Order: sequence, then structure tokens, then C-alpha cells
Amino acid sequence: MLDLPFLPFCAFLGGLGFMCMAFVSAWCQHWRGGFALDGSAQMFNWHPVLMVTGMVVLYGAAALVYRLPPAWSGPKFPWKVLHGALALAAFILAVLGLVAVFRFHNDHGTPNMYSLHSWLGLATVLLFSCQWLAGFSAFLLPWAPAWLRALYKPVHVFFGSTILMLSVASCVSGINEKLFFSLKNGTTEYKCLPAEAVFANTLGLLIILFGVLVLGALARPSWRRPDADSPDSCQVPAPLR
Amino acid sequence: MLDLPFLPFCAFLGGLGFMCMAFVSAWCQHWRGGFALDGSAQMFNWHPVLMVTGMVVLYGAAALVYRLPPAWSGPKFPWKVLHGALALAAFILAVLGLVAVFRFHNDHGTPNMYSLHSWLGLATVLLFSCQWLAGFSAFLLPWAPAWLRALYKPVHVFFGSTILMLSVASCVSGINEKLFFSLKNGTTEYKCLPAEAVFANTLGLLIILFGVLVLGALARPSWRRPDADSPDSCQVPAPLR
Repeated sequence: MLDLPFLPFCAFLGGLGFMCMAFVSAWCQHWRGGFALDGSAQMFNWHPVLMVTGMVVLYGAAALVYRLPPAWSGPKFPWKVLHGALALAAFILAVLGLVAVFRFHNDHGTPNMYSLHSWLGLATVLLFSCQWLAGFSAFLLPWAPAWLRALYKPVHVFFGSTILMLSVASCVSGINEKLFFSLKNGTTEYKCLPAEAVFANTLGLLIILFGVLVLGALARPSWRRPDADSPDSCQVPAPLR
Repeated sequence: MLDLPFLPFCAFLGGLGFMCMAFVSAWCQHWRGGFALDGSAQMFNWHPVLMVTGMVVLYGAAALVYRLPPAWSGPKFPWKVLHGALALAAFILAVLGLVAVFRFHNDHGTPNMYSLHSWLGLATVLLFSCQWLAGFSAFLLPWAPAWLRALYKPVHVFFGSTILMLSVASCVSGINEKLFFSLKNGTTEYKCLPAEAVFANTLGLLIILFGVLVLGALARPSWRRPDADSPDSCQVPAPLR
């Protein structure tokens, strides 16, 4: 396989992640009336921005931490802390994104949790909370035995990729749903493909591209830390390793 | 990692794939008026059934052919033919599924290709057509040199998983969209979560579970054919191998 260098790829991915955040913010600011904290439609607008920023872009950054060449040598602990911190930041944004949509629904008498988008989205965030807690307990706290870490690591890696896939699918269904809701009475309908629809559809494609590239980078053997199959790092006492 | 046996897993996956097909057929038959070939809403109903059957279930079966233990030894050629044939069957169903929705739209004066679901879905089928043609040319026709096969194989594997992810995201956004379209005027609205909504949301979750399990099986090192990293099989003349 062609030996693509990681760092230029990573810079491209950073630019793509920035574009995803810029597109979702511009959509909500320019076409959906901007942002507020008052339970109005402007409060809802925090939902897509926080979800894309947290569950896609920051989550993707957290997932790729161990692929950075400086993380390949030396103690693993600082990189674990960075991985856990980025994932925690992603999780906090996701929870705030859920608060935004629940508050908007409650203030408008709209039921929560009926659409497939909402079922999938909430399941994804719940899965992520389990993943973070289990990862923190097993890999950052010093008490888990090496055999447990070795057993859990492939499970953590598998769910890491799975949660990103589910996040992307949630974003796509959410953007699609929001456009059907918003582009009707009084505006050009979605089916007439006004500028907003082209812009938000493009946002959806950018999110998909970002997710696919992160998953591709994670799966690429030559970008994995050489000792990636070892269960753990330096804070395990030597006799246990 | 716990050594999960492939065949019971595969039987479970077969049952899950069958449930996906049964659920999507039952949804269209019981709640959406059944099937027809006359450009009506009953013709549209072929779209979800053919897409789930082709782009998810048959596609997943095609992807897993090389994981079957009988495919691990002996000549690879018959398994390649099976892989290509299942993928071709999946592709034909997908094209028929597209015909169903385009015919329905055209007969009702509804524009085609405006929603994010339609952009993603068509992009997925187009990508699949390229994947099938390139795979057929490189691996089934005898003329591709070994270096080209070796170069292309990881690309084919990467896009194989990617197309399945995109298919699942297309299905989720499509089911969500269809429920918003159908569950309004004259029926219980989607937001009141009638039985149809619970049923079709569950179908969405089953499709996601099927896709995640297929991708997990593909990624599992111990289920890969032992010579999976070799570029090719028996129809390459020995000096080239």
C-alpha cells in the first residue's frame, strides 16, 4: 500500500474538522437565527453545533491521539491523559447539546425521544459514557490488573470506532430531519433545494468524509503505535507486565 | 481477547439479517399499503425493502465470505466468484430500489435528489458500482499484475467497510425521513410514537446492529484468512506470486 505520511493527513483532517464546525455554526447563525439560552429555536441551534463539535470533531481528535508519532515512544501515560481529556471534553459538549434540545422540546410542548434520530443519538451518547467510564477505570486508574486491561483493550478499540460511526449516522439523520422541519411553511421547501439545503447537505457530506477518514486512519496498520497490542503502559508495576 | 467462535456468530448474524428483511417488509406491507409496480406509493415501498436487502444484508454476506473457515484453505477462486456474485446481486437490488423511488417521484411530480438522504444514498450506490467494477477487473479477470492487486487490495478492503457504513447511515436517515413524511395528516403523528414508529425505529436499530457486527467481524484479526495479506490467489501465474 502507498505509504501516506500521517502528519500531512492529520493536518488535512484538522482542516476538515474545522470546516465541519464552521459549516454547522454558519448554518445555524445565518439561516436558523443564531444562538440563545432561552429555550427558543435559537437555543435548539446549540444542539447541532455542540454535537458536531463534540461527538465528531473532538471525538475524532481523541481517537487519533495514539497515532501521533510523538506518542509512539516514551511513557504512554501523558497520551492517555490527553486521550481521556479530549474524550471528556467531547462528552461534556454532547451532554450540553442534549440539554439544548430537551430544553427546546420541553418549552415548546414537543415530546422527546420519538424519532429514530433521537433513539440513535441518545444510545450513542449513553454508549460513549460507558466507554469513557470503563476506559478511565481500566486504563487511567492504577488498579486494574494487566490481564483485565489486555482483555478489555480490543473491546475499547472496537467500541471507539463504533461510537464514531453511530455519531456520524446520528448527525446525518439529524441534519436531514431538521431540514424537513425547517424548510416548509413560509420558506422555500426542502424539495426545491434552496441554498440552505445545499449548504446543510454539504455539511452532512463533510461530516461523513471526516468520520470515514478518521476510521480509515485508525484501521491503518502502519500508523499504529508499534506496541499497540501490548495491554498497557508504564503505570503498571513491572512484574505485572 | 475472548475467542468467540465464528460460525455461531455467523448464524446469529444470519438471523439478524433475516429479521431486518422481515421487519422492513412487514412495515411496508402492514402499515404502508403493500407493494405494486405502478408508480404509486406501493411502488415506493419496494425502495426500503430492496435497499435493506441489497445494500445491507446481501452486502454484509458478500463481505463476510472470506471469513468462513472453509474459505481459508484450498483455491481462493470459487470464494472470489461467490463474493463477486453476492455483491452483484446486492448491486442489482440496489439499482431496482433506486428505480422504485425515481419512478414514484417522477409519477408524483416530486423532485429527485434533494435530501441529504438521497445525496448520501446515491453516492453510496455509485461508490459501490466503482468498487464492484474495480474488484472484478483486478481480482476476477486474470490480467491484473500481482503488484497492482497488492496495491489495490487494501483500498478495496477499506472501501468495502466504508460502503457498508454509508449504507447503514443512508438507511437510518431514510427510515427517519419516511416516518416524518408518512406519520402526519390523518394518522397519529410521528411525535406521538404510534406502533408503526416504534416498529420502524426498531428496524433502524436492527440495521445498525447488523452493520456494526459485520464491521466488527471484518476487523477481527483471528477471523481473517491466514494468508489475507497476500495480494492474491491461484489464477496468478506462480512466478508473479
